[in-house]
Amino acid sequence: MTQLEDAKKGIITEEMKAIAKMENISEEKITRRISEGTVVIPKNINRNTKSYGIGEGLTTKVNANIGSSSKVEDINVEIEKAKIAVEYGADAVMDLSTGPKLNEFREKILEAINVPIGTVPIYEAGVKAFNRDGSVNNMTEEDIFKAIENQAKEGIDFMTLHCGINKDLVYKLKDSDRTMGIVSRGGTFLYSWILENKLENPLFENYDYILEIAKEHDVTLSLGDGLRPGCLSDATDIAQVQELVTLGTLVKKAREFDVQVMVEGPGHVPLDQVASNMKIQKTICKGAPFYVLGPIVTDLAPGYDHITSAIGGAVAAASGADFLCYVTPAEHLGLPSVDDVKEGVIASKIAAQAGDVALGLDSAWAKEKEMAAARENFDWDKQFELSFNRQKAKEYRNRCHIEDDKMCSMCGEYCSIRIAKENRQ
Amino acid sequence: MTQLEDAKKGIITEEMKAIAKMENISEEKITRRISEGTVVIPKNINRNTKSYGIGEGLTTKVNANIGSSSKVEDINVEIEKAKIAVEYGADAVMDLSTGPKLNEFREKILEAINVPIGTVPIYEAGVKAFNRDGSVNNMTEEDIFKAIENQAKEGIDFMTLHCGINKDLVYKLKDSDRTMGIVSRGGTFLYSWILENKLENPLFENYDYILEIAKEHDVTLSLGDGLRPGCLSDATDIAQVQELVTLGTLVKKAREFDVQVMVEGPGHVPLDQVASNMKIQKTICKGAPFYVLGPIVTDLAPGYDHITSAIGGAVAAASGADFLCYVTPAEHLGLPSVDDVKEGVIASKIAAQAGDVALGLDSAWAKEKEMAAARENFDWDKQFELSFNRQKAKEYRNRCHIEDDKMCSMCGEYCSIRIAKENRQ
Repeated sequence: MTQLEDAKKGIITEEMKAIAKMENISEEKITRRISEGTVVIPKNINRNTKSYGIGEGLTTKVNANIGSSSKVEDINVEIEKAKIAVEYGADAVMDLSTGPKLNEFREKILEAINVPIGTVPIYEAGVKAFNRDGSVNNMTEEDIFKAIENQAKEGIDFMTLHCGINKDLVYKLKDSDRTMGIVSRGGTFLYSWILENKLENPLFENYDYILEIAKEHDVTLSLGDGLRPGCLSDATDIAQVQELVTLGTLVKKAREFDVQVMVEGPGHVPLDQVASNMKIQKTICKGAPFYVLGPIVTDLAPGYDHITSAIGGAVAAASGADFLCYVTPAEHLGLPSVDDVKEGVIASKIAAQAGDVALGLDSAWAKEKEMAAARENFDWDKQFELSFNRQKAKEYRNRCHIEDDKMCSMCGEYCSIRIAKENRQ
Repeated sequence: MTQLEDAKKGIITEEMKAIAKMENISEEKITRRISEGTVVIPKNINRNTKSYGIGEGLTTKVNANIGSSSKVEDINVEIEKAKIAVEYGADAVMDLSTGPKLNEFREKILEAINVPIGTVPIYEAGVKAFNRDGSVNNMTEEDIFKAIENQAKEGIDFMTLHCGINKDLVYKLKDSDRTMGIVSRGGTFLYSWILENKLENPLFENYDYILEIAKEHDVTLSLGDGLRPGCLSDATDIAQVQELVTLGTLVKKAREFDVQVMVEGPGHVPLDQVASNMKIQKTICKGAPFYVLGPIVTDLAPGYDHITSAIGGAVAAASGADFLCYVTPAEHLGLPSVDDVKEGVIASKIAAQAGDVALGLDSAWAKEKEMAAARENFDWDKQFELSFNRQKAKEYRNRCHIEDDKMCSMCGEYCSIRIAKENRQ
């Protein structure tokens, strides 16, 4: 039974109870939202991990992407990345490995961490075809569905599947005047395959089969946005919105089939378009949880895309996004290092918190108020404790070399809090 | 003659011409906006620097604060900070020195860089009184106005003056239920002085005298927000807005007196209140350029306040803020290092660009389009050239150790741009 199936029947599962407690809302509310599809619990029946809820009224969650590439493949480093991501607050991790040993990697990462794990199964299929026949265009349908089925059996909790990039869209895109065409890696595998083989996208054509597999293992589908924009001027165009419309119909079908489903979103979006993007996703996809990559709000900051995406992510979270995929400083330049992963997670946690504050979530405000009181009381330990990166905050404080607890090196005796306190005494 | 006086008479000064060219708008438009007070040119008649326009329809500008404190005083380091700030794109620098040698510092910093320089003269007066009589409460009116006059003569281009924090407000604030009371350093000097001496704020009471000094040297006033909130839960409250209302009346008076004037704003603001804060400032202050500090949108990220403020700054810029005061990673923890200054400036430049893109400014979009084309064409040198930090972007690229120009270590052969290009050929 999937969580959705249970919820529809009014059954309150252990996972729902745990989430109700964690989010401090009633079990009835959680159950109702799951039954309506506005909240999902990515948790494969074959895997025993911490349960997270993603969606309506819940705190904004953060995902960290890790995994090898064809150029960099070191399992220990990738596991270190996964662990540091969780340590700094990632609520989920996606293994996006595309190196030759990707199956072995996935197995080990599934063991290493205790949060929901997502994948993009088309990578396994594409890499297999590439290594076997020299091109992702040589993927067979069996390659694709075997990858999905095996990964579901292994316990993968959520899967990005680019079901919406169908033949019609691919041909339209080929002739579009986009600056950057298609930039989703999984989307490009299918785009290329469709053009080469002149066949329909198997993930679109055999969507029912995908639903069967997902239902059997309660895999949450994350409908990929293969046509997300790759630069600001391609944002919110016909291709992107047409794919979203298709995804809306697929969301409906998944829900009818008792399969949990999220929708993925852009990408590169000018700041003034972010809120509208969230709004149209929510209306077209009838409140399905929205999982956004960034969005990045300027392309001029390679090396700082954790910041460009924290801006977009915060506004997205405040406007309806439920799940933020982090972006690291290495984005557009190379595979992230362990430290890049850490910085990416922290930036996304900041964005999520800023969004949750804007939404008026009690838990987010409670922490803000604690921090304000700690500052007013010069309670440095409490400030560190409440920080997204305690160690860094502490290092900065120690750098001051000031023994007086009631000041820092910024203002010294002229500290406004200190002076104002003296006046109140 | 001030720029405002000239503009009112229809005289197009050299500075106006330079700005019209830099911003690619007509000289007539610039002149009209200056005459109406919606654009200012902070440029003291005694100083020969590059001219920047701040305000309506112009690109969002960035300020970097530097300067010693009573605990850390090293002129070489502060000059290095000022220089690196300008190197990374700061359009203005404020010298906020409060160390014993602050006069010497100001003199050297005025020589070291070629962008508008701002100060908070109440610091000089307060520090003088503290060193002479043990407390900022012992400032005399002469201390205050001598500081303003001397700094104007030295060539300071813009000055933060907390003219709005009058006796009425101070007593109200003393009994308010704010969590953090008052956190503006200059504001606190005056708050404390008013409570101790039971006198009206000299900057409020003798505003006409300030206008005379400012007019003589064409110093742009930056009306300080002494009651800006120090934490999210204090944001946009009665104290903050009442001060803003007072500043609105002072803006009107300055303009009538041909003195250029900006208004300063918060601070710590929940993301959902940022746009409204910009809007009410613009209406109350009749379109005066708005200079915001941050704003910071969560308090949980000490060590990362360049990111929290990039989020707030971007939304602020997109909603009407004209001038962003950077925040460094050291904020709330100590005086920033040279590297902190660099990171703070870059984060603010990102926010400014995101805002300018959202506002649809042609110059901002032109750069975005160039970057998109450079990515599509794998033109790495062009990408570095367009980056806010070329060196960092280049280092990331070099870390890949990949000779093939048409990929990076993130996706290798599975690069979406590469695959999509192959399909178009």
